[in-house]
Amino acid sequence: MAKDKLLFTPGPLTTSRTVKEAMLHDMGSRDEEFIAMVRDIRRQLLELGGASQASGYEAVLVQGSGTFGVESVLSSAIPAKGKLLILVNGAYGERMVQMATRYGIATEVLRWSEDEMVDPASVQKALNADAAITHVVIVDCETTTGILNPTEKVGAIVQAAGRTFIVDAMSSFGAVPTDLAAGGIDYLISSANKCIEGVPGFSFVLARRSKLESCKGQARTLSLDLYEQWRGLEGNGQFRYTPPTHTLLAFAQALKELAEEGGVAGRAARYLGNHNALKAGMKELGFLPYLAPEVQSYIITAFHYPGDTNFKFEEFYRRLSQRDMVIYPGKLGHVDCFRMGNIGRLKDKDIQALLVAVEGVLKEMSVAIPVARPK
Amino acid sequence: MAKDKLLFTPGPLTTSRTVKEAMLHDMGSRDEEFIAMVRDIRRQLLELGGASQASGYEAVLVQGSGTFGVESVLSSAIPAKGKLLILVNGAYGERMVQMATRYGIATEVLRWSEDEMVDPASVQKALNADAAITHVVIVDCETTTGILNPTEKVGAIVQAAGRTFIVDAMSSFGAVPTDLAAGGIDYLISSANKCIEGVPGFSFVLARRSKLESCKGQARTLSLDLYEQWRGLEGNGQFRYTPPTHTLLAFAQALKELAEEGGVAGRAARYLGNHNALKAGMKELGFLPYLAPEVQSYIITAFHYPGDTNFKFEEFYRRLSQRDMVIYPGKLGHVDCFRMGNIGRLKDKDIQALLVAVEGVLKEMSVAIPVARPK
Repeated sequence: MAKDKLLFTPGPLTTSRTVKEAMLHDMGSRDEEFIAMVRDIRRQLLELGGASQASGYEAVLVQGSGTFGVESVLSSAIPAKGKLLILVNGAYGERMVQMATRYGIATEVLRWSEDEMVDPASVQKALNADAAITHVVIVDCETTTGILNPTEKVGAIVQAAGRTFIVDAMSSFGAVPTDLAAGGIDYLISSANKCIEGVPGFSFVLARRSKLESCKGQARTLSLDLYEQWRGLEGNGQFRYTPPTHTLLAFAQALKELAEEGGVAGRAARYLGNHNALKAGMKELGFLPYLAPEVQSYIITAFHYPGDTNFKFEEFYRRLSQRDMVIYPGKLGHVDCFRMGNIGRLKDKDIQALLVAVEGVLKEMSVAIPVARPK
Repeated sequence: MAKDKLLFTPGPLTTSRTVKEAMLHDMGSRDEEFIAMVRDIRRQLLELGGASQASGYEAVLVQGSGTFGVESVLSSAIPAKGKLLILVNGAYGERMVQMATRYGIATEVLRWSEDEMVDPASVQKALNADAAITHVVIVDCETTTGILNPTEKVGAIVQAAGRTFIVDAMSSFGAVPTDLAAGGIDYLISSANKCIEGVPGFSFVLARRSKLESCKGQARTLSLDLYEQWRGLEGNGQFRYTPPTHTLLAFAQALKELAEEGGVAGRAARYLGNHNALKAGMKELGFLPYLAPEVQSYIITAFHYPGDTNFKFEEFYRRLSQRDMVIYPGKLGHVDCFRMGNIGRLKDKDIQALLVAVEGVLKEMSVAIPVARPK
C-alpha cells in the first residue's frame, strides 16, 4: 500500500505510527493485563476531565462510534417521565433530536442558526418556563461548522436550576480544557478517534456516579445500557460484550503520547497553531471562513466555496485526494461550504503541504487566485 | 511487549501477523478506496453464505460486538405486532430473551438443557400451535458449550411455515458451510473476530433483501437501525456513523487469507484437526468433555473440572496464562466446566503446546494424571 493520505477531517484521523503499532498484538478480553489496561484507560480519562473516582466520577467505555456513546447516554439516563432540552446549532444536535424521538423521550428543542452560538440566556428562560425539563444536552464543539458553544456558562445555569447536564464533547475533549465538576457536567461523551488521537472503535462516557446509579433499570436497549456497562467494568473489570481489544491497545498508547505532548494544554497549543496556519494560508488564497473568528474553534474550519464557476467541489476534493490530502465536505443545509480539520497527528509542515496542494489544485482547475468571494 | 499469548477462547482470537499489519494505515471513512474496500467485504461475505445481491441477499456491517449485530436485527426486524420464538439451549439464547424483553417484543421461548440440541419437532409444534409467531431465532453454535444446533432442519420447518428465520451464526460462520437460501435463512448474524479471523470491532448481518426492506421505519434505536445502516451502505457506500476503519482493513486481509486457506472448507478442515487433537490429548489426560460427541462442534469444547480437590480453576487458568496459554471459563449454570476454543490462527503445534502446558500445570498443582472423573 502506498503512503497514507493525510486526513484533514473530523475523524477517523491521521494517527502516529506508534499508536497503530500498538495494535500488532492479540490480547484476550479476560486477560488480567487487558483488564488492568482498561482500568488505567478509565482512570486517565477521568484525569483528563479533572476528575477521579474519589471525586465522584466514573468512566464507561462503549463499543461503537461516538454516536453509540451519545445514544447510550440518552437511552439510559432519561427516565420514562423525564424531559430532555436539546440545544441545537448543527447536525449533531439534530441527530440527538432524532434519537430522542426514536425512544419517545419527551423533548424541548431550542435551535440557533449554524453560525450562532447557543445562547445561555435562552436556556435559562426555557428552564424557568418548563419545570418538567429534567435533562439538558449541548454539543460542545459542533463538527458541522466547528463552532464552539459556551458550555461552561450553560452548565452553570443548568446546575443552578437543579437539572442534569449532558455534554457531547466528541470533537473537543482532550484538546479543549475540561473540568467536569466545575463545568457542572453530569455526563460527557467523546470518542477514541478524536483529539486523543486513537483509532475508531469505541466511545466513552464520563459520568457523575450518583447520576449513573440512577440509570439502573432505565435503559431502553441492552447493548447500550450505560448502567450495566459500568457495572460490568467496575465488577470484574470486563466488558459485558466483546471489546475492540486492538483499538483499546492503540488508545492506551495514544493516551501516553498525549501525556508526552504536555496533556491537554500541549495538544491545544499544537492544534491552535495548526488552525492559525490553516486560516492564514486559506485567507491568503482568498477563502472566506464560514464562522466569525470569535465563535470558531481550533478543531475544524468550514470555508465557503469560492464564487468562481470553475470551482466544483467534487473535483477539488478528488484532486486534493490524488495529492494525498483528504478534506471533508460540508454539512450545512443552506450554504455551500467544505471543511478542513486540523486535529490528529498533523503538524505545521502538514498544514503547509495542504496549502501548497490547494494552490496547485486551484491552478489545475483554472480557479483564479485569490479566489472570488462566494456568491 | 512480550510474545503474545495464544488464545484458546471464543474470541477475540489469535490472528495472523499480516491481519494485524493491515491496521498500520489510516484511511478516511469517506475515501473512495475505503468505500471500495467495504463494498468488496460485503460482496465476499455474501459469497461465503452462498449468496449474492443478484440472488436477493444483502450484507450490512454494524459497529460494535456481535451482540450489537444481534440486537440490531431483533430491534429492527420484528414489527410492533410481531412475535418472536426464541430457541434456547445456552447463554446466548438467553441473552436474546433479555433483549426482546427490553424492547417489549412479544416472545415465546422454548428451552432445552445446555447439552441438548434444539429439537426441530418441538419447533414445528410451537409454530402449529401459535399463528401469532412471525419470527424464529436460533443460535447455530452455542458458544456456551460448543453445541451445534440442527439449524438447517429448523430452517426448513420455519420456511415451510412461512415465518422469518434468524440465525445467530456468531461462532460458526466462515468455518461451517452455510447456504443462506438453501437453509431458509432470512437473517444471519456473525462477527469480525470469529472464524473469519479478523479483529473485534464490528458485526455483520446477511439478510434477504425483501425482509430488510420490510424493516423500514421499524427500528427501535438509531445506531442499531439495520434498515438505515443498509441504506447508507448501499447509497453512498458510507457508514452512517464513524466506522472502525482499521478493523475493516484487518478484515479485508482476513478474508483474503480465508480464501488462500481454501475458503470455508479449508478452514473447517484445520479447525476440525485442531479440535480432534485437543479432544484426544485432553482425553489422554483424563478430561471428560461436557457434550456427547454427536452434538459437539469443532469450534469450542467444554470440559468438566476434574474430580480432584487439588484442582482449582482460577489457579489452573492463571498458571496456563503464565505459560502464554489463555483458556476460557465455563458459562454453565449447574455444572463446573471450563472451555477451550480451537479457532483463530492456531495450528496443530499450538494445540500440542497447550496440551504440554496443561500437563505441566496439573503436575505443579499436584493433580493426579489421568485426572479423576468429575464428582
